Amino acid sequence: MEPKDNIEKKIPELRKDPIVGRWVIIATERGKRPSDFGQESNARVGGFCPFCYGNEDKTPPEVLSYRDAGTYPNSPGWWTRVVPNKFPALMIEGELNKQGEGIYDRMNGIGAHEVVIETPDHNANLANLDEKHLQEVIWAYRDRYIDLKRDPRFKYIIIFKNHGRAAGASLEHTHSQIIATPIIPKRAIEEMEGARRYYDYRDRCVFCDIITQEQMLKQRLVDENKEFISFCPFASRFPFETWIMPKKHASSIENLKKSEVVDFSGILKNTLMRIQNTLEDPPYNFIIHCSPCDSPEMPTYHWHMEIMPKLTKVAGFEWGTGFYINPTPPEDAARYLRDTELAPPVISEPEIYIPERSTSMAG
Amino acid sequence: MEPKDNIEKKIPELRKDPIVGRWVIIATERGKRPSDFGQESNARVGGFCPFCYGNEDKTPPEVLSYRDAGTYPNSPGWWTRVVPNKFPALMIEGELNKQGEGIYDRMNGIGAHEVVIETPDHNANLANLDEKHLQEVIWAYRDRYIDLKRDPRFKYIIIFKNHGRAAGASLEHTHSQIIATPIIPKRAIEEMEGARRYYDYRDRCVFCDIITQEQMLKQRLVDENKEFISFCPFASRFPFETWIMPKKHASSIENLKKSEVVDFSGILKNTLMRIQNTLEDPPYNFIIHCSPCDSPEMPTYHWHMEIMPKLTKVAGFEWGTGFYINPTPPEDAARYLRDTELAPPVISEPEIYIPERSTSMAG
Repeated sequence: MEPKDNIEKKIPELRKDPIVGRWVIIATERGKRPSDFGQESNARVGGFCPFCYGNEDKTPPEVLSYRDAGTYPNSPGWWTRVVPNKFPALMIEGELNKQGEGIYDRMNGIGAHEVVIETPDHNANLANLDEKHLQEVIWAYRDRYIDLKRDPRFKYIIIFKNHGRAAGASLEHTHSQIIATPIIPKRAIEEMEGARRYYDYRDRCVFCDIITQEQMLKQRLVDENKEFISFCPFASRFPFETWIMPKKHASSIENLKKSEVVDFSGILKNTLMRIQNTLEDPPYNFIIHCSPCDSPEMPTYHWHMEIMPKLTKVAGFEWGTGFYINPTPPEDAARYLRDTELAPPVISEPEIYIPERSTSMAG
Repeated sequence: MEPKDNIEKKIPELRKDPIVGRWVIIATERGKRPSDFGQESNARVGGFCPFCYGNEDKTPPEVLSYRDAGTYPNSPGWWTRVVPNKFPALMIEGELNKQGEGIYDRMNGIGAHEVVIETPDHNANLANLDEKHLQEVIWAYRDRYIDLKRDPRFKYIIIFKNHGRAAGASLEHTHSQIIATPIIPKRAIEEMEGARRYYDYRDRCVFCDIITQEQMLKQRLVDENKEFISFCPFASRFPFETWIMPKKHASSIENLKKSEVVDFSGILKNTLMRIQNTLEDPPYNFIIHCSPCDSPEMPTYHWHMEIMPKLTKVAGFEWGTGFYINPTPPEDAARYLRDTELAPPVISEPEIYIPERSTSMAG
């Protein structure tokens, strides 16, 4: 057998499964060998953290920061900072280039991969940020979404967070990620198609109907405020899976108003604290689902956030069928989450954020 | 908020997500509380193993065993034994009962959940069984498949294995599982629809075309014998993902002939040993994908096995998009797997299997 492979290639490649149409990113630059697995994260060296004050030059230059007046980009003084990922899954430079190879389809891995460093405080936790600070994080998500959607190469933008090593976080310092992709991912297509079928049949948005039913039954409700609702979904895949939805129909986060940002961060903080207190700070992922970024506002699709604590292992049955086994009924999960005691509210810090750690450690 | 939940219910429930149509098994009988997570497996007590000789009365009565002449069911003397799962995800007794609840759909959790205890040897490993013994395991899969498909309540039968704790195995003693479901899982529908679209367009089976292309290119080939091929798929989701496919078109394993069983177990053993040697016995899942069990032989669908070593963590991006990031190109993975040295072949044991441990430990 003559290996004729593409090991030299450095640009990640998008490949499409010819059976189900699922796209995969083959990250050739990382090119992991057998001996690279089993070692814990190789992205952190000793106690050094590239996301702390003074280490701004250890990340690619920032694309956005909210910072104290009079401080300079890529130096301390910021309270939320967005930078390109140093080890991106997709590359920002280049033209899209699609190719066939017999029955297979591939595309070069063009896209954006950014990191939202939510706070300079190395020991903070998203749920424990004060509300004003959390609002800034949401504004950063929105601002980056709006900027990235201007790039005509991108079709879909996903904002997500991995909290804890078991949920895939490779750096301890709290952060979220934004990835813009040149294709619409399968999962987004499935959601949009399902929602469109429902709309065709009933002339209503399925997400709006879910909100109505959950508000009426209350048994799966976790929290609610003027603009948002959080609940454990009827067909939860995972124990304590919780979704947050805006009550007002909108298909993406790009048009969030100030009152909505306030209520979204309020319910997000409340929900994450309930999960944290009920389950002793479990690893979790959250994902913001929006419509494709190149589409206009859609009556059929409704943006939302899905929060998935990682408490069980996904095994062969789930992988083979897409059929999940959830050992905790969502009605029980919601009751535990509602009944948990919340820590006393954090006293809101002054309008101008005063960083606790501002000494320069750059060397 | 008045909780009106169904905590008392003991039968698992199937629930359908109203957006994407994904079914979930809500295992109310397990009813895990927050404090139940974080503990490792609760299915094993001390050093006791219900799958070892002498403990046959600690499992539900066997539904199949291949055993020495003159030995009795549910007693030592077997070399491969199939029993109902003591903690089944779905219940075998009852009639199907579908219900709506507003916009939601649910069904009682009727199905079969069986465990294939591949060998009485507690310390054995599927890849290290001698070839004759591994053939018996394949025959057990096929025999159970044929028996379960007679039940008109079942639409789909999945055979899978979780190897290692990180892949979801809760008992150490090597075993596989069989689940029969009253609905066709989403993943199977996607595969069948994708394969049908390809067939409609080209009048050929997509799986047969994949085999042809992999045999021609050779760069992703791992192993091949007269009846089967094993390779790392073009759009591998996971590092070292490997598929095994029969070269002769068939949509399920039910009609496997003796020569095919021999070649399937031969290539399975070879492929698992290559994975084991290259990656130091990694956790893995394998899944046999067949057409729905109530359908006739289909020209569009082709049964196969997908083996997925668990080397990376699935994080927020993958969950949110169904879009995987694979750090090892399949061409590299296949080369590592081909190049690995295989341990010397195990000397085939005599036709009549002589168990190494036959003392009764039942108390």
